[in-house]
Amino acid sequence: MTLSVAVSGASGYAGGEILRLLAAHPDVEVRTVTAHSSAGQPLVAHQPHLRSLAHLELRATTPEVLAGHDVVFLALPHGQSAQYTAALADTPLVIDAGADHRLTSPDDWAAFYGGEHPEPWAYGVPELTIDGGKQREHLRGATRIAAPGCNASTVALSLAPGVAAGVIDAGDIVSVLAVGPSGAGKAAKTNLLASEILGTANPYAVGGTHRHIPEIRQALAAAGAPADGIRISFTPVLVPMARGILATSTAPIAGGASDAEIRAAWEAAYADEPFVELLPSGTFPRTADVLGANIASLGLAIDRAANRVIVVAAVDNLVKGTAGAAVQSMNIALGLAETTALPVNGVAP
Amino acid sequence: MTLSVAVSGASGYAGGEILRLLAAHPDVEVRTVTAHSSAGQPLVAHQPHLRSLAHLELRATTPEVLAGHDVVFLALPHGQSAQYTAALADTPLVIDAGADHRLTSPDDWAAFYGGEHPEPWAYGVPELTIDGGKQREHLRGATRIAAPGCNASTVALSLAPGVAAGVIDAGDIVSVLAVGPSGAGKAAKTNLLASEILGTANPYAVGGTHRHIPEIRQALAAAGAPADGIRISFTPVLVPMARGILATSTAPIAGGASDAEIRAAWEAAYADEPFVELLPSGTFPRTADVLGANIASLGLAIDRAANRVIVVAAVDNLVKGTAGAAVQSMNIALGLAETTALPVNGVAP
Amino acid sequence: MTLSVAVSGASGYAGGEILRLLAAHPDVEVRTVTAHSSAGQPLVAHQPHLRSLAHLELRATTPEVLAGHDVVFLALPHGQSAQYTAALADTPLVIDAGADHRLTSPDDWAAFYGGEHPEPWAYGVPELTIDGGKQREHLRGATRIAAPGCNASTVALSLAPGVAAGVIDAGDIVSVLAVGPSGAGKAAKTNLLASEILGTANPYAVGGTHRHIPEIRQALAAAGAPADGIRISFTPVLVPMARGILATSTAPIAGGASDAEIRAAWEAAYADEPFVELLPSGTFPRTADVLGANIASLGLAIDRAANRVIVVAAVDNLVKGTAGAAVQSMNIALGLAETTALPVNGVAP
Amino acid sequence: MTLSVAVSGASGYAGGEILRLLAAHPDVEVRTVTAHSSAGQPLVAHQPHLRSLAHLELRATTPEVLAGHDVVFLALPHGQSAQYTAALADTPLVIDAGADHRLTSPDDWAAFYGGEHPEPWAYGVPELTIDGGKQREHLRGATRIAAPGCNASTVALSLAPGVAAGVIDAGDIVSVLAVGPSGAGKAAKTNLLASEILGTANPYAVGGTHRHIPEIRQALAAAGAPADGIRISFTPVLVPMARGILATSTAPIAGGASDAEIRAAWEAAYADEPFVELLPSGTFPRTADVLGANIASLGLAIDRAANRVIVVAAVDNLVKGTAGAAVQSMNIALGLAETTALPVNGVAP
Repeated sequence: MTLSVAVSGASGYAGGEILRLLAAHPDVEVRTVTAHSSAGQPLVAHQPHLRSLAHLELRATTPEVLAGHDVVFLALPHGQSAQYTAALADTPLVIDAGADHRLTSPDDWAAFYGGEHPEPWAYGVPELTIDGGKQREHLRGATRIAAPGCNASTVALSLAPGVAAGVIDAGDIVSVLAVGPSGAGKAAKTNLLASEILGTANPYAVGGTHRHIPEIRQALAAAGAPADGIRISFTPVLVPMARGILATSTAPIAGGASDAEIRAAWEAAYADEPFVELLPSGTFPRTADVLGANIASLGLAIDRAANRVIVVAAVDNLVKGTAGAAVQSMNIALGLAETTALPVNGVAP
Repeated sequence: MTLSVAVSGASGYAGGEILRLLAAHPDVEVRTVTAHSSAGQPLVAHQPHLRSLAHLELRATTPEVLAGHDVVFLALPHGQSAQYTAALADTPLVIDAGADHRLTSPDDWAAFYGGEHPEPWAYGVPELTIDGGKQREHLRGATRIAAPGCNASTVALSLAPGVAAGVIDAGDIVSVLAVGPSGAGKAAKTNLLASEILGTANPYAVGGTHRHIPEIRQALAAAGAPADGIRISFTPVLVPMARGILATSTAPIAGGASDAEIRAAWEAAYADEPFVELLPSGTFPRTADVLGANIASLGLAIDRAANRVIVVAAVDNLVKGTAGAAVQSMNIALGLAETTALPVNGVAP
Repeated sequence: MTLSVAVSGASGYAGGEILRLLAAHPDVEVRTVTAHSSAGQPLVAHQPHLRSLAHLELRATTPEVLAGHDVVFLALPHGQSAQYTAALADTPLVIDAGADHRLTSPDDWAAFYGGEHPEPWAYGVPELTIDGGKQREHLRGATRIAAPGCNASTVALSLAPGVAAGVIDAGDIVSVLAVGPSGAGKAAKTNLLASEILGTANPYAVGGTHRHIPEIRQALAAAGAPADGIRISFTPVLVPMARGILATSTAPIAGGASDAEIRAAWEAAYADEPFVELLPSGTFPRTADVLGANIASLGLAIDRAANRVIVVAAVDNLVKGTAGAAVQSMNIALGLAETTALPVNGVAP
Repeated sequence: MTLSVAVSGASGYAGGEILRLLAAHPDVEVRTVTAHSSAGQPLVAHQPHLRSLAHLELRATTPEVLAGHDVVFLALPHGQSAQYTAALADTPLVIDAGADHRLTSPDDWAAFYGGEHPEPWAYGVPELTIDGGKQREHLRGATRIAAPGCNASTVALSLAPGVAAGVIDAGDIVSVLAVGPSGAGKAAKTNLLASEILGTANPYAVGGTHRHIPEIRQALAAAGAPADGIRISFTPVLVPMARGILATSTAPIAGGASDAEIRAAWEAAYADEPFVELLPSGTFPRTADVLGANIASLGLAIDRAANRVIVVAAVDNLVKGTAGAAVQSMNIALGLAETTALPVNGVAP
């Protein structure tokens, strides 16, 4: 049986990547693609690389157009999904690539987003350690799924195993991320112009203001950290690559853990995971290694002189960070093979 | 009076940048440029952008060729300067852009470089706080100067004022740096090929192995931190820009310092410095803002939730990180106006 | 039945891309991968993005190691295939990604390569117009195939339809190509360092010396141009993108052809081709549109003021330019479905 | 005597570069900087690299604010200068960096721009061959100057010597340019986003529609080509570098010219020019070689097989292409030393 799918925000980067993955999915048919100002135009006018979907035309993003599918993906600016979800009450599975349904804490929502706090949905990072199990279990049969923030899931996957095993201290985490501009979307903004990004590294949201911070705290609390004892210094830096996140996250070594105990925490957490890899000791990932792939690639170092564990994680923000996480979660929710249509090989160089 | 100058390593990136600055210096004449395999060729065959020096031909790097100048710049691979310094005993001023003469501690030298420990020279970062004064005083009249490591001086300038004022704790520093490949020099290495750097972020020397770590510790100890209480987690990440360092450095807030006290530490340290700028609160630098300029541009944030001060510093690794530091130090040593031939304006976009 | 395959040069860019495509091919098993200095190391030490082939170890490139497979791909530096081909006499299909077997003319070989002229093999560009048919017919059942030069096939596909239809004059072609450095391979060369490529456009082989020129002439002669009346001014320019060729090729309008006649020539040639697309009038391709895809994307303009037809072609040099052409040719030669394992969708942005 | 200067469009790329050059000019004082939506803000909020002008505040662009200076630079979107020029009747020197005053032919204006044809001003490319002399002579004492289009002046300088000497045929010129996005200005447009430019080459204005084409024709006619016999196929390609033009221009060899005669045409034209260099035979420029410099760097090849002369020219679009041309023209017009404040050395790598 083929599932019918609609994708909103199909002219943007996240929407385009969801479509790139779904185009190779044997169990789904992309029936509807929607956009705002580009409605009425061919999809390939905005996504010329998606040749196998050249038959699709962008329609207006309305509740009526989105209704009546088996699965709906919402790839909309933050705050816009609420207006559609009510009308999609009968849709078996809705997956939001935006932030609206990620946070469980009304206080966090109020502090970082503001306005009415939408209902939290199942969080779309299956590999996260949670309550001694995996978040995957919470996605089986789910009908409403929140795809993660790309930076948030990258840092959460980097540190959750150590937190869960008690070998690192979540009370003094420092994460600095080199990120590509596609994570900021396709809206025309002066600070995202090529002339402003080429040849330069640009920090933003410095000093604890980035909206992914509460999302990381939430994930690490679920992994076992004391909810009021998680502190994260988080700094993203835009660098001149279209895609990719290279997150360097460090936390103090906790409880006198040995090197073997530390490494074992990550090995145990990800040994059986198809989409999270722990590189051999002394090896670290590049974003090029995961471009186009649904992979979080981690390298782990233990710096005794600094008394810190360092995890370097490479993620393609549009794949494992967004669209791949969404499709992987869909596969789980619907009882399909989890790895369907999700590439593990990247495109390099 | 015009000073005669020789520059070794003139076919490389550091040597080329020293020449770019000296070409505009009214008090010096570049009389000799030397290289290894390229000796005998015109300088512009290797530095086609240095048109005003088109009359110079590369000579072999030998003690005899370098001797007899008022000032000699050594821009050689680490470990090579020793073979020249003995022969330059009569040279009034020698400035080494390599690492050989930076470290005062034989233990640090043994741990990070190995081999015989060369004599430490005056450290070429005039603005560093040291013993309640500035490193500048140690450069006046100096005859042997060690230009700094570009990453080391960037991090040291970022944190020294807070350490000296006691408002941050040097015992748990975390620095993550986005750096361009020109800092690695012009030698042909597979991992520095354009195909390996374009479109990707590449971590290296993860886990406390980078040779600039002891240099940072040394500078912060000079600024007033307890020498055995300095701990630094240091991770550089290669990103696709030819030049530039964007260093994000964080340290715990110390001693209950107020926001005003914290900011005042940096303001006081750099208020009168021509080449270090502290940006207005809420503003952070990009590497594009300092490209080609002899400037360290700092932005400061205080994250009370994370209990950390964050300093983001942008430096052109070839200018303020290397060649500009060398020329600035030369100006001071020789009693010239410190700002001579050192641009404060960058080239952007 | 699964075919056993060996790939030499597996640590390089062309070899890596052949492996990326074959990893998704249902009819083949990559049994052997070989390299020179890296023999004995895991494949993923050199191609960390090829996770699904993590079980493979690089072996030495010797005739013995390559023998005994159903298909052997040679991705070696030019001039090296000859030493292996004799030993592979019993191998049913050998595909050379190098230049050795592309040229039919001994004079061209002598002028552009020199040394003994190797036997020409079937040319691996199925879509080329030749003698009123397609080159595809010459690949069916072929046992020895020469994959094309990436620049050569890009320009040949751009112009062959117009030449075959007599609507452009092959006597005064001008082609200028923006190309990424991966086409030059993974050897460590100073001029291919990231610092030399980032932020700059670099011409090379200016003035008629590029080795792909005779290959283009040969293809256009096969398409119907008078062999002694083909003249091409060909200039490649390295630009800062890892992959991609954006070829702008122009030729004079011939024989008073109308706009409709001109456009019809290309439409007819490529209407049924799965891997060559002609974009709608007024639309032109970007290399981003074909990244990772086995596609040559063409845009056509007619400039009456200049009396020239302009064809802009985008090709991923490693896919349709090399590895995709090789696998597509293999599919044809072996009687498999031509499109097997060859993506038409790109990875963008 | 210090001249007072006003620069409009000071928040943009062209305005910023004019300011970067003027900041080092000993004979001028930048007294007024103007912008539209950013009026009231510090200049360095938009041009953080221009530290030496940190005392300036952006004012509104109005005729009143611009009046009363010795020199006014207009760096405004095309079509906007007319509203200011009437009010600047008493200003001794006005230099327009926009297109309004470049074209002498009303027909060309109507065909490529439309609307009322503004008065043509003295064309700001001093080195162009014109009527057996140089355009420089027409700039001495000029009171109204049109700075050139960056692509147009690059191509015109590439070919004018050969046209003037009769050794190339202007009737079949082909120019393809790799250009950086800063030439398109700082306006927020989706197609200029970093995600759309990074890692890709993007052609635009294909097929004879670019507005610089009539400007090139005009310059070559002035150099001696028959006005109705100039034909140019012109294709610009956006590539991922913030600045720079790498123009490959070819034209048929004319009149049986010998290699020596051809090369002599360019040598004679530029032998005494401080800002146009002809590289040695076999050598070609990169845009990196001219970054930040007021230089047009040319390499010349003669391809007898193609019967064409190829000129590869590298120009920094913001310097020699715009701001440098403007300041150089100002120097000439005012009788200052032509080379004042104009760097010949670039910033590389």
